[in-house]
Order: sequence, then structure tokens, then C-alpha cells
Amino acid sequence: MKIAITGGAGLLGNRLARHLAASGRLGDHEIEALTLFDVVEAQAPAAAPFPVTVLTGDLPAPGETDRLLDGRPEMIFHLAAIVSGEAEQEFDKGYRINLESTQRLLESVRHGYAESAQKPRLVFTSSIAVFGAPFPEAIPDDFHLTPLTSYGTQKAIGELLLADYTRKGFLDGIGIRLPTICIRPGKPNKAASGFFSNICREPLAGHEAVLPVPEDVMHWHASPRAAMGFLTRAATIDGEKLGNRRSLTMPGLAVTVGEQIAALKRVAGEKVVARIKRAPDELVARIVAGWPSRFEPKRALALGFTVEKTFDDIIRAHIEDELGGKIAS
Amino acid sequence: MKIAITGGAGLLGNRLARHLAASGRLGDHEIEALTLFDVVEAQAPAAAPFPVTVLTGDLPAPGETDRLLDGRPEMIFHLAAIVSGEAEQEFDKGYRINLESTQRLLESVRHGYAESAQKPRLVFTSSIAVFGAPFPEAIPDDFHLTPLTSYGTQKAIGELLLADYTRKGFLDGIGIRLPTICIRPGKPNKAASGFFSNICREPLAGHEAVLPVPEDVMHWHASPRAAMGFLTRAATIDGEKLGNRRSLTMPGLAVTVGEQIAALKRVAGEKVVARIKRAPDELVARIVAGWPSRFEPKRALALGFTVEKTFDDIIRAHIEDELGGKIAS
Repeated sequence: MKIAITGGAGLLGNRLARHLAASGRLGDHEIEALTLFDVVEAQAPAAAPFPVTVLTGDLPAPGETDRLLDGRPEMIFHLAAIVSGEAEQEFDKGYRINLESTQRLLESVRHGYAESAQKPRLVFTSSIAVFGAPFPEAIPDDFHLTPLTSYGTQKAIGELLLADYTRKGFLDGIGIRLPTICIRPGKPNKAASGFFSNICREPLAGHEAVLPVPEDVMHWHASPRAAMGFLTRAATIDGEKLGNRRSLTMPGLAVTVGEQIAALKRVAGEKVVARIKRAPDELVARIVAGWPSRFEPKRALALGFTVEKTFDDIIRAHIEDELGGKIAS
Repeated sequence: MKIAITGGAGLLGNRLARHLAASGRLGDHEIEALTLFDVVEAQAPAAAPFPVTVLTGDLPAPGETDRLLDGRPEMIFHLAAIVSGEAEQEFDKGYRINLESTQRLLESVRHGYAESAQKPRLVFTSSIAVFGAPFPEAIPDDFHLTPLTSYGTQKAIGELLLADYTRKGFLDGIGIRLPTICIRPGKPNKAASGFFSNICREPLAGHEAVLPVPEDVMHWHASPRAAMGFLTRAATIDGEKLGNRRSLTMPGLAVTVGEQIAALKRVAGEKVVARIKRAPDELVARIVAGWPSRFEPKRALALGFTVEKTFDDIIRAHIEDELGGKIAS
């Protein structure tokens, strides 16, 4: 099986490449080749048991999605996107990267595989930002698409296109609505949701972190580990089981900021928690208020997608995977 | 008030132009000028008390939506579209006309009115085809967007874009999900829903008509007269009342084909009804099976949108408006 990943230099793309290199397989298939595409140079995973091609380019530019699909990969992970805060501030850039890239990729698949009997699986990372308030207490799988950000709008449109291209038989698409990935490793990015990770990651590393919202803000989380499970499950599941509704809300953990902090205190102690500084930010608070916080992802659970049971687990996974087991004292 | 209409040569565009010419006003505003745009030459309404400009062009071609907005109309009716059957058969054409035109129009408004304090109202004709089966018995306003046709997908994407551009303050958009317009005057078109009108209009005019589906097929109808009410109501309503959810399911009449035929028999007699010939068509039946048939349009009803009470009323309106009161014997 040949695999292509857009956003190959991003958090999930990079981790997915390493995950695939470590296993050498995806489901029942041995991996023959991997292509990583991003606007900056993606890092090829060390010691991959298959050839890795690293492409850099501007995904929505003419010809780039064709170049990505040059080797006719059977599996495409379309992870490339700019994050919610940036898409909200830079309207044109958001539509170009988050919508036009998707449109071009779908068109490249449609034309590039027109003669192929077997259409590629395309896993599209959507987002819970496709949903906008007001919400019921727990959001069902069939809640309507009511995004309140440009990012959410772009993802919702991606879902609709994916479903139509799949229905027409041009490809075999599955959209997965990711929870906020927490704890995000690395540096803070422009995502409005960044603080959910910052308030755990930075204190664990000995740094201060800013909390811009009240502690009663609830949110829907999954770890980077869980996200790997979502992606590989979405890649290997029988598409027929999804019928015409090709996008699934992924399972997550609904916790308040206060519960996050309490978990951090249990796992890492008082001193770590004291590194969180309150600095209310109205723009962030307003964006987050439009986001959903709790779901009933019955379809995904029935289809075998899984997530952590407690936020303590999420913190411990981060300490193991990113900090070599050590908390900054 | 200056008004622009895309799809000005179409059924609704033409009728709306005549309606506006007859009244000279839209809500509280005297009409100063009207621009009709279509790919074929639209007919300027006779004796309009304001200047009418007729533009022909390919709406999604570069510059055309700018040309449409040259006079900075305060009211834009975006009615241009190709119908469901054609969009299903001609994939590229459907996306170009039904999606790209909308994207270009929204961008032209965004840039063309950037310096204007007052943003134009944009009324977008969406469709109940944004919803796809399986359905509850009556579809609520907050049913999720699950189109099962490319046409429905294109309309759903238009709704999402309209909401995002409105939220960002670039324009003041309202989407109205039209029922099937019945009885459609004129010649049959490529809409898969065409037969709902054909089986009434043709027999009333003395011609045979083909019924491609079983009599128990239920559908959601409104007359061309009712559609004029929807458009003018959507043009004049206070946008604030819609909040962030900018698209409304319009009221309609849920009747089966059998009930349509019974109404036709009551209004026009046995001889007229005998002109309906059964000729099952699987493609049409499959498309129609994915369509919704009954709604609970609570929001639109609360906002003052109205529709006929019986299908007999719909038939009588057609006989008055289109046949000068005469049924072919």
C-alpha cells in the first residue's frame, strides 16, 4: 500500500508518519511507500522500512495536488489546514488553504483515478468546529452543521464535498471530526484552542502558561495518541458501514478547565499547577463560547473508535511520550 | 432601492421582475432600478416604473459578478442555478454554476461594498435538497445537512458560505429553502422534480403527461405565487431575527402524487386526469426517494412566511395566473 499525507510536517502528520514507520503496516497492508507533503519540509521518520518522499509546496497552487498523487497512493490522509484562530483573522488564507486545497485534492483524485477500478480511501480531518451554539447538553451525531467560525465553515464544506465525491464513486472518503488535540506538544500555535494544551504542557516543562478563559469552560479533548488511533481506524474501516453519511464525530473526553487543572495537580503536584496564570482574553473566550463541549459519538464508538477514560491518562501519556517520564520540578 | 437578480430569465427571476414592476416598491422602499442577469437574455417587465438593465453573461466567469453589482444594488436576489437532474448528470457544470457562481458573487459583494457602511441584503434560493434520507416523519428546522445529490450539496455549501460571510459582516444574507415549485409554468425542464408539475400543467393544457413514480410518493410543494411571497418576505425581514442561522426552510404543502391527482380531478374533472400516463423511471424514482417530503418549518412560519392551504388552491392559482381561467377540454 502506498500512502500520501498532506500536512506531513504538522503535529498529526509527523506523528502519523512515525507511527506508520514503526509498524510498517496499515491494517492488513504492508506499506510500500510514503509521501509527505507540506508547505515546510516534513521530517521523514527515522528507519522507515519503506521509501519516504518529502515534497514541499503550496497545496492549493495549480498542479500540486496532482504531484502529490503521482504514485497513485491507495491511502490519502488529508490533514493540511491552517488553524481556527488564523483562519478567523486571515479570511482569504483560510479559504485558500482549508477549502481550496480540499477542492483541488478531490478534483485531482477524481481525474487521476478515473481509470482505476479501485478508488483510494481519503481520510479527511474535520473538526468539532463544524458545530455552533446553541447546543444541547450532549451533541448527537446528527446535530446540524452550524459553524460559527470560518474554520468550521471550511471544514463543514469539506465534509459535504467529501460525501458528494464519495457518493459519485470518485473516491472512498471518510471525515473524522477531531476533538481538540490535547496535550499538543511543541510550541504554542495560533489555534484559539491552544491554551487547553498550554496550561498543561508549559507547567509540566517548568514554564508559565496563560489561561484566557474561566475555569468552568468545558471542552472536548483527545490525546495525540488517541488521534493516531482515530486516523488508522478511519483508514482501515469498511467504508460501506458509513453509508452516505461519511463524517463521524470522534470520541473525546468532556472536561472543564478546572478539571484539567485538578488532574494536573493530581498527576504533577501543586508546584506545577501554580505556573498557570489567569489573563482573561475576550476574543478567545468568544470563539470558545461558540464551540461545542460534549458529544454523544455513538456512531464512532459503534465503529470501534476509542479514546482515553480520564484527563489524568491524557497527562500521563504526554509525560511518557514527550517528556521521557520527567516533570520539571 | 436598487435591485439585482441573477437567474433573471428563469421562472422565479422573470416572475419576480414582473412582480416588482407591478408594485414599484419592495417593502418600505421605492424601487429606483432593476438589473436582470442571466446566461440568456432576460425579458424586462413591461411598463416598469423604474429603469431595467438586462445583462447576459456567464455568471461564474471572471468579472461577471462585479459587473452585476456595478450600480451597488442594496438588494440582491441570487436565483441563478442549474437544476438537480442536470447538476447530477453534469458534475463540472453543476459545481461551476451552482457553487462557483455563489462563491464569486459573495466575493464581489465583500470587495465591492468594503467601503460601504450599509451592506446589501442577499437573498439566496436554497432548496430542500440540502436534506437527505433517512428522515423523520416531519423534518424540523434543525435537521442536519445531508444532501444526496450534487445539487443539494452545492446548495448546502452556499448556505454555509452565506452564513459565514454574513457573520463576518461582509453582507446581510438570508437563504430560503424552497419547496418544489408547483405548478411550474412553461416547458418541462431537466429537474428531476419536473413531473410533479407536468402531471398537472400538461393535462390542464390538453396534453398528455408522464408520471415516473408511484402515487404514494409524497412531496413538499409551493406555488409560484407563494414563492413570490417567500422572496419578498426574505428581502424585507429584519436580518437580526435570524441570528447566526441564516437559512430557513420555507413552508409548503405535503401531498402525495395520488392527492395531487385527486385535487386535479376535483378542480378539472375526470377527462383531464385521464391524460396522465404511468411510465416508471428508476433514475427519477431513486433521486426523489432521497428527497424529503414533509417539514415543520416553525422558524419561517413564526417569521411570517406563508403558503397555500390545499393543493386545490395551487391548481386554481395556476389556472388563473397561467391559463386565463380556462381548462383545455
